[in-house]
Amino acid sequence: MSLGMQDSSGFHRLRIHEVAPRDGLQIEPVFVPTDRKIDLIDRLSLTGLAKIEVTSFVSPTAIPSLADAEIVMRQIRRVDGVVYAALVPNVRGCHRALACGVDELNLVMSASEGHSRANLRMTPRQSLLAFEDIVDVTAGTGVRINASISTAFGCPFDGAVPVETVLGLVDRIAQLGIGGVTLCDTTGVANPRQVGVLCAAVLLRYPQLNVTVHFHDTRGLGLANALAALEVGIERFDASLGGLGGCPFAPGASGNVCTEDLVHMFEAMGLNTGVDLDRLLAVAGDLPALVGHAVPGQVLRAGKADRRHATLATVDR
Amino acid sequence: MSLGMQDSSGFHRLRIHEVAPRDGLQIEPVFVPTDRKIDLIDRLSLTGLAKIEVTSFVSPTAIPSLADAEIVMRQIRRVDGVVYAALVPNVRGCHRALACGVDELNLVMSASEGHSRANLRMTPRQSLLAFEDIVDVTAGTGVRINASISTAFGCPFDGAVPVETVLGLVDRIAQLGIGGVTLCDTTGVANPRQVGVLCAAVLLRYPQLNVTVHFHDTRGLGLANALAALEVGIERFDASLGGLGGCPFAPGASGNVCTEDLVHMFEAMGLNTGVDLDRLLAVAGDLPALVGHAVPGQVLRAGKADRRHATLATVDR
Repeated sequence: MSLGMQDSSGFHRLRIHEVAPRDGLQIEPVFVPTDRKIDLIDRLSLTGLAKIEVTSFVSPTAIPSLADAEIVMRQIRRVDGVVYAALVPNVRGCHRALACGVDELNLVMSASEGHSRANLRMTPRQSLLAFEDIVDVTAGTGVRINASISTAFGCPFDGAVPVETVLGLVDRIAQLGIGGVTLCDTTGVANPRQVGVLCAAVLLRYPQLNVTVHFHDTRGLGLANALAALEVGIERFDASLGGLGGCPFAPGASGNVCTEDLVHMFEAMGLNTGVDLDRLLAVAGDLPALVGHAVPGQVLRAGKADRRHATLATVDR
Repeated sequence: MSLGMQDSSGFHRLRIHEVAPRDGLQIEPVFVPTDRKIDLIDRLSLTGLAKIEVTSFVSPTAIPSLADAEIVMRQIRRVDGVVYAALVPNVRGCHRALACGVDELNLVMSASEGHSRANLRMTPRQSLLAFEDIVDVTAGTGVRINASISTAFGCPFDGAVPVETVLGLVDRIAQLGIGGVTLCDTTGVANPRQVGVLCAAVLLRYPQLNVTVHFHDTRGLGLANALAALEVGIERFDASLGGLGGCPFAPGASGNVCTEDLVHMFEAMGLNTGVDLDRLLAVAGDLPALVGHAVPGQVLRAGKADRRHATLATVDR
């Protein structure tokens, strides 16, 4: 299994970041038992994913479904080459995460005032100040930081978000010394042209920054937007196994891009994700039993594109 | 409403072809009353669609749900600039269609032997011979012909379909004087790279041919494939209102690309389809009542990307 940025033929490997354990499970109404979370992550670790967002060090009162963050983070079996990340909302969460030895902290802010207030109860400016505190706390620990910018492609409250606004936030984030930025289409409003423009602008301005995209399939555009991002040079993609999850505080927001559908598209195109799709599909296939309901992933239902059927006899209606 | 190939600013108009009345309704288990079919098509005619596949002149025994082909074709209110097409499986169907004054005949064949035998009960070679007969019958009538090539991107029985095979079929079709070809991804196995390659090859070889693409969303790739086709110069797209329909004889085949989701993507990208999306969504919104079940279209549920929500109060869980 290739776990470096280049495969044996020298081609770049696309990096797939799995967010289901955090972004998916956080909104499940039924608590998924801790040992089953750990088992899910351990199985995901063996599929060739580049990064797994394991959990969130938020207040257990705010998100009871992830109240077992410490135990999960400590008990998973880490695989070399996989980055184990966790969402951290503030300095308190940062200390908890550092105590568990996370590889990467994922900080979250919104590009728009409306979503920022509704989702985070603070302004984007306050978020940036909180980022600064977290950067200070992590100084010298060697722990990586990524900053996710929600509503980077538009906000369900404020409407359009100008490219300049997002670039301004990326400027501030880069100035803080944060090495990675995720551009999030939190409510699935992005379109491929816009994706190409914003991603190209960010890559052009910060060639050294690790830029990830995070799309939602709310309006069916998840994979089309991923394709548009790929075409301008994006190599890092968030996705959620089975298409689990979404943003609980944004109306109409549902459906993270499905990891196995995204990997299926890239691999069918002859691109290298490093992911063993069959193994990933096996894990995805157990998701409905884990969460107690069907999941939106389509390849799981239809089979891979190269799936063959017996002829004639079985087809006749 | 712009109904020509160019809008007022001189930009090309993408041509959206609605197939729900034929491709969608043909597999509905409950017969949709004739007057409601006519009403559906009449409403679609006012949305700015470039073409509507109205019905199919197949044997009423084979497809009872379209047994009212003549009445529907004769009683719809035609709008200038909209092409009214019908599927025609053979010379007999051709005579029936011509008697009703269709604008365009849509002939269907498969690129692969396995699907051809299963779906049409003949070989691709026999299909081409049948096309020849139909071309002879229509000579001098002024009626346009389009040939749809099923499984052009792969077959659920035979597997991969080489580009050369499809190009060979397009050669034969063009030699017959047929002016339009539709490349169909009948079971949703195409990927964006493959779409770009095949579409570019056909456009390069036949710049004068009207090339349409017909995608299925079986593996979530419908819009991504449409985007890939667009990028190499395709301007004609089949789609089905609400995502209704699919191919009844191909296992795992479901979900034509949804018309309103496709139009939503193109219009969000600043492209001109000539379609009034709000009007189209209004028609799509009545589909569940018409067919008696939910339809897969996503924009219908989520609202357009520019949909705005009230802030704070309504969001807080």
